[in-house]
Amino acid sequence: MDVRALVFDVFGTVVDWRAGVAREVRRLLPGVDGEALADAWRGRYAPSMDRVRRGELPWTGLDDLHRASLDELLPEFGAPDAPEDVRAELVLAWHRLDPWPDSVEGLTRLKARYVVASLSNGNVALLVDMGKHGGLPWDTVLSAELFGHYKPDAEVYDGAARLLGLPPERVLMVAAHVDDLVAARSRGLRTAYVHRPQERGPQAPPPPAEDPDADLSVASLTDLATRLGA
Amino acid sequence: MDVRALVFDVFGTVVDWRAGVAREVRRLLPGVDGEALADAWRGRYAPSMDRVRRGELPWTGLDDLHRASLDELLPEFGAPDAPEDVRAELVLAWHRLDPWPDSVEGLTRLKARYVVASLSNGNVALLVDMGKHGGLPWDTVLSAELFGHYKPDAEVYDGAARLLGLPPERVLMVAAHVDDLVAARSRGLRTAYVHRPQERGPQAPPPPAEDPDADLSVASLTDLATRLGA
Repeated sequence: MDVRALVFDVFGTVVDWRAGVAREVRRLLPGVDGEALADAWRGRYAPSMDRVRRGELPWTGLDDLHRASLDELLPEFGAPDAPEDVRAELVLAWHRLDPWPDSVEGLTRLKARYVVASLSNGNVALLVDMGKHGGLPWDTVLSAELFGHYKPDAEVYDGAARLLGLPPERVLMVAAHVDDLVAARSRGLRTAYVHRPQERGPQAPPPPAEDPDADLSVASLTDLATRLGA
Repeated sequence: MDVRALVFDVFGTVVDWRAGVAREVRRLLPGVDGEALADAWRGRYAPSMDRVRRGELPWTGLDDLHRASLDELLPEFGAPDAPEDVRAELVLAWHRLDPWPDSVEGLTRLKARYVVASLSNGNVALLVDMGKHGGLPWDTVLSAELFGHYKPDAEVYDGAARLLGLPPERVLMVAAHVDDLVAARSRGLRTAYVHRPQERGPQAPPPPAEDPDADLSVASLTDLATRLGA
């Protein structure tokens, strides 16, 4: 592979959304099951973006989609009267997710040899906040927001390669989700699968250990750095 | 000032374009006066962007504008037959400009307290390369390319605040050029002027020591960090 840039999915691949959201739910809504609300909230993630992808909604940033999903869920979780400031603060939980233990070391090693950038459905402000919170050493933040399309729309993968000034085969998409890699491959990017067995918690069916269609399957971002000689 | 993010002009403000371009001209076109070509090339910078700003050209990235200007200038500098690979490499000189001596320390200190981002007419790939070359610790790269408009068009300043999720008065534009700050202020951003007396070389008329209309005037990015308590 003659790869120059690595672009990373973030939710689940670089950061642990479930633990981070659950922690903020427990802090801000004592008595609500943090993990259960985190799972339900994340469950609305793809359907909410699909409404934008199908054109049923105009472009709407992820913070706003998160807020709408939260407002729908709070009555189900016994908190129909949660005040405005608590709702706004809960949405910011997604800006303050902690990296997986290997992420900062892996990205730092990879940055010495490659361009490293996010390629996430999170909005730019969310990704910038998350980078500062967790010390993620991005060369730059790339976001669906820059393209007005959510992954897995082709415009996101095409746009990332275009902004980086590279042909798609010199860009490696790194993700813990097979569907993201399928879409990236269909646009000509190289792909690396990261196994994140804890992403959905101990009760959920585990993700596959490898993606046989990816160029690489790795167990962590430090493993990825080692495999790429970084 | 209740500023959360600092956005930086880069050519002349953070990096020394004149010395960097001249060095590459001397390396790739021995016998050509490096500083003279650098000055002439930079002289075509604003006029070339103005053609895009007036709609005479569709959106054209800075690498392509740089290339067109170079092709026009080479005959004047006695190098009408410079080969394709030399021309392509010269355009990349703008990706490899060195920071002013205070830039990395200043940005690093500021990053600990603020979001720090470029806000440059350079294209994203140029800014990413420059950041890696010089070790500029951006939280993210913001570029005119993301907005399809060149500074001083309003869309660039408005777009930066929008992507950062901030009202304009919480964004501080930092530049060594008064016209950039005038435009930023007209869109509601706060402004800081950096005095860069070496930008255009020893023969050029020096820039003003201060901008009385800016919120701050400083002598360096370390000075800016000190003034902002970072």
